[in-house]
Amino acid sequence: MKTLVVIGHPDVATSSTQGFFKHAAKQEAGVTWYPLVAPFDRGAERALLWAADRIIFEFPLYWYSVPAVMKAWLDEVFDDDLLGTAGDRLAGKELGLVVNTGRALKDFAPGQGQSFTLAELLRPLQALANETKMTYLTPLVVGQFAYLTERERQELLVNYRQYLTAPRPGHLADQAAWLASRLRKLAEQHPDRAPGYLGLAAVLEDNTDQLSDLRLNLDLLGDD
Amino acid sequence: MKTLVVIGHPDVATSSTQGFFKHAAKQEAGVTWYPLVAPFDRGAERALLWAADRIIFEFPLYWYSVPAVMKAWLDEVFDDDLLGTAGDRLAGKELGLVVNTGRALKDFAPGQGQSFTLAELLRPLQALANETKMTYLTPLVVGQFAYLTERERQELLVNYRQYLTAPRPGHLADQAAWLASRLRKLAEQHPDRAPGYLGLAAVLEDNTDQLSDLRLNLDLLGDD
Repeated sequence: MKTLVVIGHPDVATSSTQGFFKHAAKQEAGVTWYPLVAPFDRGAERALLWAADRIIFEFPLYWYSVPAVMKAWLDEVFDDDLLGTAGDRLAGKELGLVVNTGRALKDFAPGQGQSFTLAELLRPLQALANETKMTYLTPLVVGQFAYLTERERQELLVNYRQYLTAPRPGHLADQAAWLASRLRKLAEQHPDRAPGYLGLAAVLEDNTDQLSDLRLNLDLLGDD
Repeated sequence: MKTLVVIGHPDVATSSTQGFFKHAAKQEAGVTWYPLVAPFDRGAERALLWAADRIIFEFPLYWYSVPAVMKAWLDEVFDDDLLGTAGDRLAGKELGLVVNTGRALKDFAPGQGQSFTLAELLRPLQALANETKMTYLTPLVVGQFAYLTERERQELLVNYRQYLTAPRPGHLADQAAWLASRLRKLAEQHPDRAPGYLGLAAVLEDNTDQLSDLRLNLDLLGDD
């Protein structure tokens, strides 16, 4: 599967959140990391979009929406030439969102500080997915990255890598299969540790209840 | 009342919709017409925003959101310097939206072609109003301006002018009062036609049921 990660940030190089994601993305095969910089090269970007199976819009939430550079890109590049005369040249692809926010995620729960949930605030992008006949993936949202504990960062790393490449990210059974396949690959690469990796893979396939602990075990075993 | 109309359009001069609105806005006292052009003059724009009682964001809907130039302006100008240390320097002002779309409005009704209603798609701006403690006015939405009949344009003209300057636009009783005040002013300006104007004003104040017909009568009487 080919995944295109489109980053909308006014200054990607200085963003610790995007640096963290970039490091994680580089470890997955078939992932193209594409930070947006104006002016856009529409021809090259159309080709990237057409070639991708999964398209990720990755951005910090600015005033409850994408940053200006990403809106400019959508306004300029998502046109009839991209979509084709039948409007279906992106049809069947997946559209994922990786959104980080300076507020805690709990602020967006109904009845908390913010007026609307993140699901509601992201409707314009869900509508874009529908209009272009892409499958909208459940967004991966991150609140207050700077305050995450090391353990939370490790968990985010695995969730993020799954979000880029796993089938149906967010579905527990698929996440377990993705982790098991990673463990089997690790076992091939590190024969000395193979029994441990294969044992975990077997447990995963037998018992998805232990998934969240196993996620962390995977990281502690040093898959980087 | 001071109203600031902020226009977010990539090329205001060529827009027939914005030309129509501009002509209407120029007829209302206390209205500042402000098309956004980058780079922004943050100091001047903050002063305009602070001075306004009602702030209107006026834009065509591009990918279910504001055009890039308006998003850039929001990202750059709506900051701590604008909102002040207590975050309340816009508190108590009204925020209105004038949104035109290339689709028919009926496409946004639940179960029609589009996935979400315009009210839902505009949540990010409603959230901005809430966050900055402004009162969110019911948006004025216009579908397919180019296809409006002359009668529909006349009606839009009155609705638009009310939206800029009438108290609580959208409330029938306030609209009637606004129209009556305009008729009385016309009567002063054109003594020869005063009986007609004053008669209509009296009817308005007696009977708001006939409001929509009277709106058109006002235009036919030549208030321009």
